[in-house]
Amino acid sequence: MIRAMPPLRIAIDAMGGDYGPRATVPGTALALAQRPDASATLYGKRHLIDVELSRLPSTLHHVRDRIDFIEAGDRLPVDMTPSRLLRDAPSGSLHACLAALRADEAQACVSAEHTGAIMALARRDVGMLANVARPAISAAIPTISQRPCYMLDLGANVDVRAEHLVDFAFMGAAMVRLVDSIQLPRVGLLNVGTESSKGERRVREADALLRAHERSHFEYVGYVEGDALFTGNTDVAVCDGMVGNVALKSSEGLARMLGTRLSGEFQTGWYARLVGWLATPVLRRFMQELNPVRYNGASFLGLKATVVKSHGSAQAEGFAYAVRRAVDEATMKLPERLMP
Amino acid sequence: MIRAMPPLRIAIDAMGGDYGPRATVPGTALALAQRPDASATLYGKRHLIDVELSRLPSTLHHVRDRIDFIEAGDRLPVDMTPSRLLRDAPSGSLHACLAALRADEAQACVSAEHTGAIMALARRDVGMLANVARPAISAAIPTISQRPCYMLDLGANVDVRAEHLVDFAFMGAAMVRLVDSIQLPRVGLLNVGTESSKGERRVREADALLRAHERSHFEYVGYVEGDALFTGNTDVAVCDGMVGNVALKSSEGLARMLGTRLSGEFQTGWYARLVGWLATPVLRRFMQELNPVRYNGASFLGLKATVVKSHGSAQAEGFAYAVRRAVDEATMKLPERLMP
Repeated sequence: MIRAMPPLRIAIDAMGGDYGPRATVPGTALALAQRPDASATLYGKRHLIDVELSRLPSTLHHVRDRIDFIEAGDRLPVDMTPSRLLRDAPSGSLHACLAALRADEAQACVSAEHTGAIMALARRDVGMLANVARPAISAAIPTISQRPCYMLDLGANVDVRAEHLVDFAFMGAAMVRLVDSIQLPRVGLLNVGTESSKGERRVREADALLRAHERSHFEYVGYVEGDALFTGNTDVAVCDGMVGNVALKSSEGLARMLGTRLSGEFQTGWYARLVGWLATPVLRRFMQELNPVRYNGASFLGLKATVVKSHGSAQAEGFAYAVRRAVDEATMKLPERLMP
Repeated sequence: MIRAMPPLRIAIDAMGGDYGPRATVPGTALALAQRPDASATLYGKRHLIDVELSRLPSTLHHVRDRIDFIEAGDRLPVDMTPSRLLRDAPSGSLHACLAALRADEAQACVSAEHTGAIMALARRDVGMLANVARPAISAAIPTISQRPCYMLDLGANVDVRAEHLVDFAFMGAAMVRLVDSIQLPRVGLLNVGTESSKGERRVREADALLRAHERSHFEYVGYVEGDALFTGNTDVAVCDGMVGNVALKSSEGLARMLGTRLSGEFQTGWYARLVGWLATPVLRRFMQELNPVRYNGASFLGLKATVVKSHGSAQAEGFAYAVRRAVDEATMKLPERLMP
């Protein structure tokens, strides 16, 4: 029997991340259940992947015929610098995914490997768009409104120039417009204040460039401060990778601390313990939203094909979010429509 | 009758901040009640200050004889850029405080004016230490442990060089050692990762300088990432003003968002509302710790005398914290002991 395969195929690095196939296999199945037009190929070790496929709940059995498997290497050695990875890493499951992407056997790749590893190998094996000088990493942050805020860059670049920040603004706006269907994304430039005289030279230069630029596809709202990430008034927050990385990781650290403290408050004294027990369902809902402080799935923008990174500690549901993101970006052909 | 005045005098900008004398007058009194060796002079409008002095609760009457008053201008015009402030601002209560500091009529100053305004006027009227190239702003952030983490710079400097970051490390370490009595502060350099190859050039250069430097007064722990701000493993986190400012303000924004969301969770459905009502005292305690995400009182390091900024939205208790910080820094003669 010849099966008509759906047109979109996602290459899944099944071995990456803290949980490997235990997260990536059910996560992929979950995502395919929600994206009926997509299919996936799992790259990795057969004996580990087969176990997880056989464990899929019956509610997910219907997606099995959209999941293929290709034997590949293991996850990458941990603690290898990107330069050593490029030089002498054994070929792992991520390599196989990127090779499939390069050969157009898949239209997107999802991996839970380390950011630096994915970026280094993807730049080499998939390549960069000709009109983008620097790739950027973007992730969505929950805000007080229904709409998330996408921050970029989150650490692909340090030592950037004004023109790179302008590129990030265009790439972030294109992504939000195409993938999240926001017609006129509001794009802000992160700075130490909102007055025009403030900030680093490169930020002020980027501001001038953005103001001078033709921008029918997004609204440039000027400088925004760090708290704007969470107010819901900015769809895309642009900064260099150092600022974005520190802001994201400090927010994650703060959320963890507040979670621990909140639990602690409900353990001081018998009354607090009793109320904490009664409040368990409410607090659990709150904690789930809170940690980590982002939607799972960071997009690597500027590559010739869609590559999405899952958080290393993501379990099946988190990994599914990253896979859905990859499907949505590939469906919209984001890479080729990223720059004007 | 001749009153023997205590030796240490703090110049209080009574008019600054969102609440003016309503916060600064009771805040000063509260702080003096906890610092019996200090006295204060309130600078501002007599009719407004007198009202607040007369409203002090009887428990604070005993500090009245340590509070003096000098008639001065009002708070600074809002929304004036630092350069315009230097050129043509009317002389306000902050000017009078800084003049007193310069004339050695006071040993420290506390103001709730905007950071840029305080920094610009203080640099001109108080002056910089000869051996510090750039002043820095530092504030304490609560961590999961009992010890706070001091982050600097929070926005006094953008476009800094490696040597400036090294200065910040020395200044932060001296402050923590002298004012907070931590014998060997652990000083980290904020970066996008902990591997030695990571980060901006200036950060890598600062790392090399710090490793090479004689440092008997603090322990240099190398690179730290954003989440280290809240783990309690770092006493001083060093970064440029852009990174520090965005990290602090994004943390404040996140804390506000989580507070709002937590309240929201306790309002969805009758059960959550009931439990929320029962949990009010526990939640209130948590919220108080949470917002703002720092101890009130930012220290301006590198000036010839102690200047502490209170949050503009601080009420009496918050302002008291800033005044106590100023007393402690002046008591330790921090400015003259800041650099090795």
